[in-house]
Amino acid sequence: MALIVQKYGGTSVGDIERIKNVARKVKARVDEGHSLVVVLSAMAGVTDRLIKLAHDASDRPVAREMDVLLATGEQQSVALFCMAAGDIGLKAQSLLGFQAAIITNHMYGKARIEAVESMRVHELLDKGQVVVVAGFQGLDAETGDVTTLGRGGSDTTAVALAAALQADVCEIFTDVEGVFTSDPNVVPQARKLSHISYEEMLEMASLGAKVLDIRSVAFAAKCGVKIHVRSTFSDEEGTMVVPEEHVDEKLIIRGVAYSKNEARITVKGVKDEPGVASNIFTPISAAGIVVDVIIQNTSADGTTDITFTVPKTDYKQAMNLLALKAEKLHAKEVLGDPDIAKVSVIGIGMRNHAGVATRMFNALAKENINIQTINTSEIKISCVIEEKYTELAVRVLHDAFGLAEDVLPEQEA
Amino acid sequence: MALIVQKYGGTSVGDIERIKNVARKVKARVDEGHSLVVVLSAMAGVTDRLIKLAHDASDRPVAREMDVLLATGEQQSVALFCMAAGDIGLKAQSLLGFQAAIITNHMYGKARIEAVESMRVHELLDKGQVVVVAGFQGLDAETGDVTTLGRGGSDTTAVALAAALQADVCEIFTDVEGVFTSDPNVVPQARKLSHISYEEMLEMASLGAKVLDIRSVAFAAKCGVKIHVRSTFSDEEGTMVVPEEHVDEKLIIRGVAYSKNEARITVKGVKDEPGVASNIFTPISAAGIVVDVIIQNTSADGTTDITFTVPKTDYKQAMNLLALKAEKLHAKEVLGDPDIAKVSVIGIGMRNHAGVATRMFNALAKENINIQTINTSEIKISCVIEEKYTELAVRVLHDAFGLAEDVLPEQEA
Repeated sequence: MALIVQKYGGTSVGDIERIKNVARKVKARVDEGHSLVVVLSAMAGVTDRLIKLAHDASDRPVAREMDVLLATGEQQSVALFCMAAGDIGLKAQSLLGFQAAIITNHMYGKARIEAVESMRVHELLDKGQVVVVAGFQGLDAETGDVTTLGRGGSDTTAVALAAALQADVCEIFTDVEGVFTSDPNVVPQARKLSHISYEEMLEMASLGAKVLDIRSVAFAAKCGVKIHVRSTFSDEEGTMVVPEEHVDEKLIIRGVAYSKNEARITVKGVKDEPGVASNIFTPISAAGIVVDVIIQNTSADGTTDITFTVPKTDYKQAMNLLALKAEKLHAKEVLGDPDIAKVSVIGIGMRNHAGVATRMFNALAKENINIQTINTSEIKISCVIEEKYTELAVRVLHDAFGLAEDVLPEQEA
Repeated sequence: MALIVQKYGGTSVGDIERIKNVARKVKARVDEGHSLVVVLSAMAGVTDRLIKLAHDASDRPVAREMDVLLATGEQQSVALFCMAAGDIGLKAQSLLGFQAAIITNHMYGKARIEAVESMRVHELLDKGQVVVVAGFQGLDAETGDVTTLGRGGSDTTAVALAAALQADVCEIFTDVEGVFTSDPNVVPQARKLSHISYEEMLEMASLGAKVLDIRSVAFAAKCGVKIHVRSTFSDEEGTMVVPEEHVDEKLIIRGVAYSKNEARITVKGVKDEPGVASNIFTPISAAGIVVDVIIQNTSADGTTDITFTVPKTDYKQAMNLLALKAEKLHAKEVLGDPDIAKVSVIGIGMRNHAGVATRMFNALAKENINIQTINTSEIKISCVIEEKYTELAVRVLHDAFGLAEDVLPEQEA
């Protein structure tokens, strides 16, 4: 009999009927003889309503109090769940962040879990209770303050609990069936993967696949927690996110991801000498803008062009900052383009296969899609292209790597 | 410079604008140099909405989880208040029940405060912060569970904090101007009292005046906390609830209260022998019905009539229980009347004045209002009358004791 940590997102507990549905799902597993810890998000829409209230109350809501406010969303979910559980004879007890001892640092709004002192969870499990933990919230043990982990934080709560309890599996229930080879809205032939490695999942998540919060994947990788991403609204198996050695490597590429959330900036004709990059990026990072891809090409005449991407929402601010700096940098000009997209192919298989890049570039070239910048890591290749070609590019890449037709690992079983 | 505990009820923090208004009121006092601890209720309507949600989730919501759910109401108020405070330069920090260490017993939904470990409150006050405590909620230190104190519990939170901190005064802000000689809706001439003793306030509260939660008055009396009941929506002084020796006793009667929430039951012709009363009241109290006034007259023929009142909501159940018992009791009959009211005159002055009862009975008789039962304590006389005469009775009593015209203590100042 297994110890299972389950996490249900905001849509899964979106109203009272859905909460009752989740209670029935949990009961079915308990009836099979398993021990369950259930982590819940706030009911869909609640967090947004609370944020709106906060902005009505203040032009700049204090971060500490924002966490106190937002934590009520999950607190309500777990209480309502345990009430519904009572009606169907499921013994369940709620624990808030401070009660489950989800210990975090003091970074309000984006706190990091530092420890889970799971004694009380163990005690309840030993009594045959389902332990229902409020996701997203923690306790700064030093100050005794309520903290929250930021959007998607409940995934991390679940993984941290699974790690602390040495659970057999951490099931993340969501409104999709699992992790797909690409976004099914863009590629109708996209297929659900039975397995994916942490590294691939990390790349997928950071490149735009929104199934799992990226921090939870990193946490799981560090602690070796097996994640099962699956749908609340079906009993189908989803996707296992596991260590690399548990993934069949036959497939070179496991997924095609895309993101339209970035903008590209190029600083042209700066001197190719030490300190230039630092001069460009210091003001950008001081403004709290996160730079993603950075590319610098050497050039013959002693000057160079530096290209990088920033979140689309920070594009204007970054351009303004650079306009102020351009003269000091002796840059020829600063070019920007907010209408770009990043398409990426991801797979641990590419480590042992030459030719992935070539196949990618050929596929895009065949459709006359110009590649503006290229960026690679050990297990992914990303290209920045014109935004209007995004869907086309994703489809041709999905096709070029045979993701729809190839015999995927789950079909061999 | 004083240490002041203030409590604002649900109407006072009923929406964001009102929360901002309260923040301004608090700031005005801080600017005068005082140290403030502020206790808040949930925004008006929030608790009722949460209770409805609970009943949607379950036919019989688990008490433990109900407290977890309801505690979110006050948690939201204190967070929003501190945000609004930040905007006007008021340094305020929220504390939840577990953080302010409002330690209660384990009676979910009606927990009693057993201790307030105010160390953290002191620390914040020493730093010049306004400490904003979530009312109504506490922590069962034994289990670590969230508890709530029941309706009106925030008054008790405030008084308990005032006692623990040895505050100079506990100001209870509400939507009325203070404690009146009677209900101004019934008696237009009713006047606000400047002072009232704990004992009188207890009688007033238990007899239907809804200004203060009765448990908070008892708590204040025990610990000698001075309460100032006043309006959120004006700067007028309200009513001081203080030890008897601080109240000018010139006035014999300080108030006329009434209640329409009871029903009268008479068990006629039972044997006047030991055990009869016990036989009647055991099933009633076993059903959780609280009996108020009990009257038994001796009679000549060896039988007697026992009359008592129960809450109107429990009337039918009590009648049914007695119908089952009547035969066993050899009672002649069981009579009931739900259409009654209780009018009471209250005042510590009556201890030293004969003739209060006579004046009361005469006043009612003059209007042909029949008195069904009479019940007295040291500082109050209550009469049960036909419900339809309630308002008339209250007005003639208010008049008979000169409450509108007499020179009240506050007018001498």
